[in-house]
Formats: sequence, C-alpha cells, structure tokens
Amino acid sequence: MSIGEQHIVKSYDIELGKLGDALARMGGLAEAQLAAAIEALENRDGEQAAEVVGGDARIDSLDAFINEQAIKVLALRAPVADDLRTVVTALKIAGEIERVGDLAANVAKRSLVLNQLPPVAQTRSVSRLGRLSLAMVKDVLDAYLGGDSERALVVRDRDQELDEIHSALFREILTYMMEDPRTITPCSHLLFIAKNLERIGDHATNIAEMTHFRITGKSLPEERIKCDTAASLGGLPGHDTI
Amino acid sequence: MSIGEQHIVKSYDIELGKLGDALARMGGLAEAQLAAAIEALENRDGEQAAEVVGGDARIDSLDAFINEQAIKVLALRAPVADDLRTVVTALKIAGEIERVGDLAANVAKRSLVLNQLPPVAQTRSVSRLGRLSLAMVKDVLDAYLGGDSERALVVRDRDQELDEIHSALFREILTYMMEDPRTITPCSHLLFIAKNLERIGDHATNIAEMTHFRITGKSLPEERIKCDTAASLGGLPGHDTI
Repeated sequence: MSIGEQHIVKSYDIELGKLGDALARMGGLAEAQLAAAIEALENRDGEQAAEVVGGDARIDSLDAFINEQAIKVLALRAPVADDLRTVVTALKIAGEIERVGDLAANVAKRSLVLNQLPPVAQTRSVSRLGRLSLAMVKDVLDAYLGGDSERALVVRDRDQELDEIHSALFREILTYMMEDPRTITPCSHLLFIAKNLERIGDHATNIAEMTHFRITGKSLPEERIKCDTAASLGGLPGHDTI
Repeated sequence: MSIGEQHIVKSYDIELGKLGDALARMGGLAEAQLAAAIEALENRDGEQAAEVVGGDARIDSLDAFINEQAIKVLALRAPVADDLRTVVTALKIAGEIERVGDLAANVAKRSLVLNQLPPVAQTRSVSRLGRLSLAMVKDVLDAYLGGDSERALVVRDRDQELDEIHSALFREILTYMMEDPRTITPCSHLLFIAKNLERIGDHATNIAEMTHFRITGKSLPEERIKCDTAASLGGLPGHDTI
C-alpha cells in the first residue's frame, strides 16, 4: 500500500467514524430526553418539561449533520457492501431517532398543559408505559452500537407487549372520562401522551429492523403480529401503530 | 463513447428511471388511499374502509422495493451531485409516503370503529380537514414529479393553516364531549383521526423540503413558524406536530 492509499483509507475511516459518533450521540440525547420527559410528567415538574421542549433542537441539528455527512461519504467515497449499509442505515436510523426526540418533546409539552389542570390518577400508568418504551429505546441503541443483531430482534418482539399495555390503558382512560366528565380535558391529553409513547416503541422496532439489516444484509419479513383494530369493532383500537 | 460505455450509461438511466417510477406509483397509491379513507369516513362506508386497510400492503412493498433499488444504484453506480441527491431523496421520500399510507389506513380503521357507534356531527369537520391534507399531498407529489421547487415551498407554507384548523377542531370536539359525555368514545376516535390528518400535512411538508433539496442542493433553514403549546398553557395543544 502506498502512502497515498493509506491516507485515503484513513480519512475514509475518520468520516465513517464521525457518522457513527454523531449517531451514538444523537441516540444518547434522545434517550435522555425521553427519560426526562417521563420524570417531568410523573413529578409535574414544569421546569424539567420546558428543558425537554427546548432540548429537541440539538437532536434536530444532529439529524441534519448526519444527513450531510452521509451524503458526503456517499459522494466522495462510493462505499460498497458493509460500509454502504452502515451509511444508508445511519441515514434512516437518524430519521427514527429524530422522531423519538419529537415525541419525547411532545410528551413534555402536554405535561406542561397537564400541570395547569387537576391531577389525574392515570398519569402513573402512563408513566409506567413510558418506562417500557424507554427501555426499548435504550436496548435497541445498545444493540445497534454493539452490532448485536439478536438483541435487536428481542427489542422488536417486545413491541407487541407495549401495544397491549397501551391498548388496555386506552380503555382505562376512556372509562375514567365517562365516569367523571370533568376529567375529559386532562384525560384527552393523557390519551395522546400514551399514544406518543406507544409510537416510540414502533420507532425502536424500526431501528431494530434496520440494525438487523445493517449487520446481516438481510431485510426481515413483515412477520410481526399486529392485532387488527377493524377485527374488534366493538372495542377500542390500540394495536394499530399510528 | 464506446459501445460499452453507451451500454453502461443506458442501464444506469434505466435503474434511476425504475426508482423514479416506483416513487411516482407509490405517491399515486398513497394519494388514492387517503382520498378513499376520507370518503369512507364521510359515507360510513365500511367496505371502502376495509379496502383501504387492506391496500396499505402495496405501499409498504413499494417502499421496500425503493430501498433495495436505491442501495443497488448506490453500490453499483456510485452516483454524484444531482443523481446522488435524487437517490437519497427517493429513499427518504419513500419513507414519508409510507407513513402517509399508514396514517390513511389508520383513518380507515378508526372509521370502521365509528361505524359501530352513533354518528357524530363533527365527522364532517374532520373530513374537511382531510380534504386539506389530501390537497397538500397531491400538490407536493406534483411538485416533486414536476421538479418544481417553488410549488413545493407553497405546500410547506400551507401546513400552518392546517395546524390552525386542526387546533380549532380539537377544541370543538372536546367541548362536544363535555356537553354530551355519551359521545366520549366516538369523539375520542375523531380526535385521533384529526391528529392523523394533521400529521399527514407534516409529512407533505417534509416531502416539500426534500423536493427543494433535491432540486437546489440546499437545505431549508428551520424557519417554519410553530406555535408553542407550552406558551398557551391554559388552552389546548394543536400546533404541535406530533
């Protein structure tokens, strides 16, 4: 290998490294934002919630950086095989993490609104749902960074449990609203907070699938069992992932 | 140019063309799915709603095809400049369209649930919101296919109007629930349908920004005015884009 080639290889590794570092940092921030949003909800802590709302911009700018960096590597280095998968999945995973950040910020925004209303008992159940979604985010980021495809698939499988808990919680909150119509306003916000947390589980699942693809080069079949809302017409939806 | 080179250039164009065709088809399907979902909601048409739910799989498989095709072009052709932007934005826009399809399917799922409950007057206002989001999707896809950056930016600017209408509608539905608690269940589904439609506007906005980037090579600054839920604590959120 000539000195020139060594130089090229080295700067290529540096650029791929920058991409990986930015993604790791972005993931860490999103995880911290989500943890803080759940805490702020539990403790009716307006200051902490406002910090989460303000902190989302950092995640957004890391997303923009990753997009630029990925395009730069594609243009200048024309990566193939493993490296190409790393760049393309970085681009896509950054988009997923950006949404997790948005959803965490939305939980914080709504908890600021809840702080102005009388407390509702169901907040505790919603924050438990939040801890489950947080654990999924943490585990899938660890799986991605550790290159652990098996661990990623375990996260993917846990999404169904999250969907079921969300579904039961949806019914519980609705019943509460009917029993005491004065709680309609805070409970409707809780419904959306719960939905945001359930959506975070979907993004963790997407990251799990992309992690599997990055490591193995194979896409997963759409085998996840999704309960069909339309099939339980009398009931309430909750298994849909929207 | 040798015959060999001609051949290479031609098959490259064919591959880029395949990517463009798949994206155009995917966009057309998503637009049709959304239109059908809104119609099914208005007319309490369970058959049409069920078709929309079933039709989402076609959009998902086009998304998978575009992902594969994009990675293939990146690996084999190492595109630069304009072509690279085309491939990368195709990858990202496909993700946005896939979400529009999911959201349309969710509107259809929830309208199936609504069909089992007494009709609610606000359904008409929600379907009007749906027509606005549909117009945004249609216009942004036209802008992308026509390579019209100006038109894309007009769509982006319209998202604020959609957010405002959604916000007013959210308040209206909540008031209705409080006045007549028997409507809590159907109205809570309407709240989520309205939210899905508002989210579709956000995806149209994202596609507008990506279209602008594809054509000009420049990212847009985050200049969109977003009303801050946290700043209107007594009120109800609606300007958040989650």
